[in-house]
Amino acid sequence: MSKDSKKKNRIVPEPALRRMPCYLAQLKVAQKEGLKYISSPRIANIMEIDPTQVTKDLSYTKIAGKTRVGYEVLPLIEELEDFLGFKTMDEAFLFGAGSLGTALMRDYGLRQFGLNITSAFDINPEIVGKDFDGVKVYHLDELKNMINPDIKIGILTVPVEVAQKTAEIMIDAGIKAIWNFTPVILRVPDDIVVQNTSLYAHLAVMFNRLHSKESKRKN
Amino acid sequence: MSKDSKKKNRIVPEPALRRMPCYLAQLKVAQKEGLKYISSPRIANIMEIDPTQVTKDLSYTKIAGKTRVGYEVLPLIEELEDFLGFKTMDEAFLFGAGSLGTALMRDYGLRQFGLNITSAFDINPEIVGKDFDGVKVYHLDELKNMINPDIKIGILTVPVEVAQKTAEIMIDAGIKAIWNFTPVILRVPDDIVVQNTSLYAHLAVMFNRLHSKESKRKN
Repeated sequence: MSKDSKKKNRIVPEPALRRMPCYLAQLKVAQKEGLKYISSPRIANIMEIDPTQVTKDLSYTKIAGKTRVGYEVLPLIEELEDFLGFKTMDEAFLFGAGSLGTALMRDYGLRQFGLNITSAFDINPEIVGKDFDGVKVYHLDELKNMINPDIKIGILTVPVEVAQKTAEIMIDAGIKAIWNFTPVILRVPDDIVVQNTSLYAHLAVMFNRLHSKESKRKN
Repeated sequence: MSKDSKKKNRIVPEPALRRMPCYLAQLKVAQKEGLKYISSPRIANIMEIDPTQVTKDLSYTKIAGKTRVGYEVLPLIEELEDFLGFKTMDEAFLFGAGSLGTALMRDYGLRQFGLNITSAFDINPEIVGKDFDGVKVYHLDELKNMINPDIKIGILTVPVEVAQKTAEIMIDAGIKAIWNFTPVILRVPDDIVVQNTSLYAHLAVMFNRLHSKESKRKN
């Protein structure tokens, strides 16, 4: 194993990882503006964080900034995309082809970021057999015939009452990372990665912030 | 203003707000299982948190648990849905009808959680004029003719390089809360609410966790 790939597979603190797509976004803007170099204070200023944070976060990658000029934009974009796993395609199964599930199946943006949903599973006879932008929906019972050691990611978009049970079925089928869009806290073995993304929890936070500001304005 | 609505419009700490949809999910499971009451230790155990945390979080609502039996399931479900803003419909404009944008327009789950996207805006002539599950896409230039004081929420799903500019156009059109799906850190006035939900940042965290575990397994 090379030094670089070891570095890439190192566990990176979540706050740093979450800032990296922001750096990537800023770099792409800089690229469109025709900039060849960008300094850490400039990135830091846009994001309203400390420049030392930027250099610290980017030190997880194999790109180093140059004194005075900063980071070269194009190589840093390529390195970050590679580092974040957006350049290699990971295949995924999706569980629960309801409203959000089919929306994700149609979001080709996921493919651009390295995630390709190859098949979906559901139990609703009205949905099983359908095809959404090339992704076919199979009955969950067919999963056992479709186990593929290359498919380690499962997207969970089922109703809350079957979320835990479905997660267990996924793990039995060899899934190692669950992208959990349900608000359920999943109980899984230690070697399973769970990434929680509860859209509706974010919505609740936004409603509360908006409505409390609205009521302040009125008073 | 009644005491209850005051309580509802109080600003609630984000971690508590984010746990509430998890409580709601657990309560709905309990309801399907036919439970009439649920205790805070039971909710806490499922979520692997401390029972005092549950009672503290739920004290923001107007429902109190009863000694020995706990919380009555059905009234707590209704109170939480109301408290989280899922029962009243907020209308929203969507900006950027690309892949993720149209996916959200088709996600009727948002409607069930109190968010109704009434119109979308884009600048791409191939998209403007189209209709996605009843939501029409207008040219961004038409926004000025469609300003509506009841529409305070804007969903931002544009490309990164126009995210800041679009946010400013939204604010000029009276938007008070921006649900930002781009990885760009928006600079907005203090009275504007920004809720960041960067799906691809979550994806990056999941890739890193999965790949670092995979590499550990191989070594």
